[in-house]
Amino acid sequence: MASTIDFYFEFSSPYGYLASTQIEALAAETGLTLKWHPILLGPMFKAMGSAPLTQIPLKGDYALRDFKRSAMLAGIPYTQPGTFPIATVAAARAALHAREHHPERAPALIKSLYRAYFADGRPIDQADVVLDVAQESGLDRDEVAQGIESDPIKIALKKEVSEAMERGVFGSPFILIEDEPFWGFDRFEHVKKWVALKGGQ
Amino acid sequence: MASTIDFYFEFSSPYGYLASTQIEALAAETGLTLKWHPILLGPMFKAMGSAPLTQIPLKGDYALRDFKRSAMLAGIPYTQPGTFPIATVAAARAALHAREHHPERAPALIKSLYRAYFADGRPIDQADVVLDVAQESGLDRDEVAQGIESDPIKIALKKEVSEAMERGVFGSPFILIEDEPFWGFDRFEHVKKWVALKGGQ
Repeated sequence: MASTIDFYFEFSSPYGYLASTQIEALAAETGLTLKWHPILLGPMFKAMGSAPLTQIPLKGDYALRDFKRSAMLAGIPYTQPGTFPIATVAAARAALHAREHHPERAPALIKSLYRAYFADGRPIDQADVVLDVAQESGLDRDEVAQGIESDPIKIALKKEVSEAMERGVFGSPFILIEDEPFWGFDRFEHVKKWVALKGGQ
Repeated sequence: MASTIDFYFEFSSPYGYLASTQIEALAAETGLTLKWHPILLGPMFKAMGSAPLTQIPLKGDYALRDFKRSAMLAGIPYTQPGTFPIATVAAARAALHAREHHPERAPALIKSLYRAYFADGRPIDQADVVLDVAQESGLDRDEVAQGIESDPIKIALKKEVSEAMERGVFGSPFILIEDEPFWGFDRFEHVKKWVALKGGQ
């Protein structure tokens, strides 16, 4: 019987943002323990010879429209950032630092970072902005600043990404329940049905 | 107020097959008139520099799993065809011939062709098999055989594909309600919500 829902997300991913607003409810509904995994899509896209959605001809325009509509239909605030996609190493490291050292504050930080970028238009590619959001989320700014520059956190993020790839993760958001993979915010209903069928609780 | 739901599909598309089983219910529920558009993805993939899902590293294995699971969770019979994807020119031409000359029989033919390939493992890349299915769907075998080799139907299919691309269609299934695009079987719920919001009926 499955017990954990592994939630993989990249901070520059619009569907990852949408998922971040509902993942706790999904875990609660399925009775699974939620584990947050910040990752970077860059290395995965490299492995697939892929590109960010919005840079693909035809699909790109549709994607921008679908981000906004998916948010609107789910009642989630969304403003397409002018600079997109962005580098999210600092944000991912901050999230990992919080998960490792202040696990009770990590979910709030992750959700706040996403909201800062996708609802409030704040440039979370900048370490200073990440630290502002960390402070607003009740974390110690200086401690997080040291954390995101520390070797253990740098190594931990690389490990998260390589372990995710070994488990078959290739996008964001991505959910694993043991070895069952679900890619996309639009698979949340499948997760619920699948857990109900397989007896997740 | 929108009145038509344009449904674009490629016969080698698993999600197109799943959509074909529910599109009439979707049209009924939204009060829109359904128009069936057989298309070929080949020319679209060429324009995007894209490839069939199952040929993309990492994504390919997931896709095969998701086809089956999506069908299972929706209660639709599905067996992954051994030969996949396939050329579907004959099937698409037969569907167009039926739509143009026997519109009342076209939906049954389209659904039967999809089921033949994705549930019964019949090789609908072969014109003979397409004609068998046409006959089983109450169409005249010889007439359809002539139809799929006729210039008007060949031209009509090319026109469907180029018009679809002009309207921004790049995948299967693809729905257009006026100029609002919905890509994927997993967007059916969005179609319902969107029509309810915009006042489709």
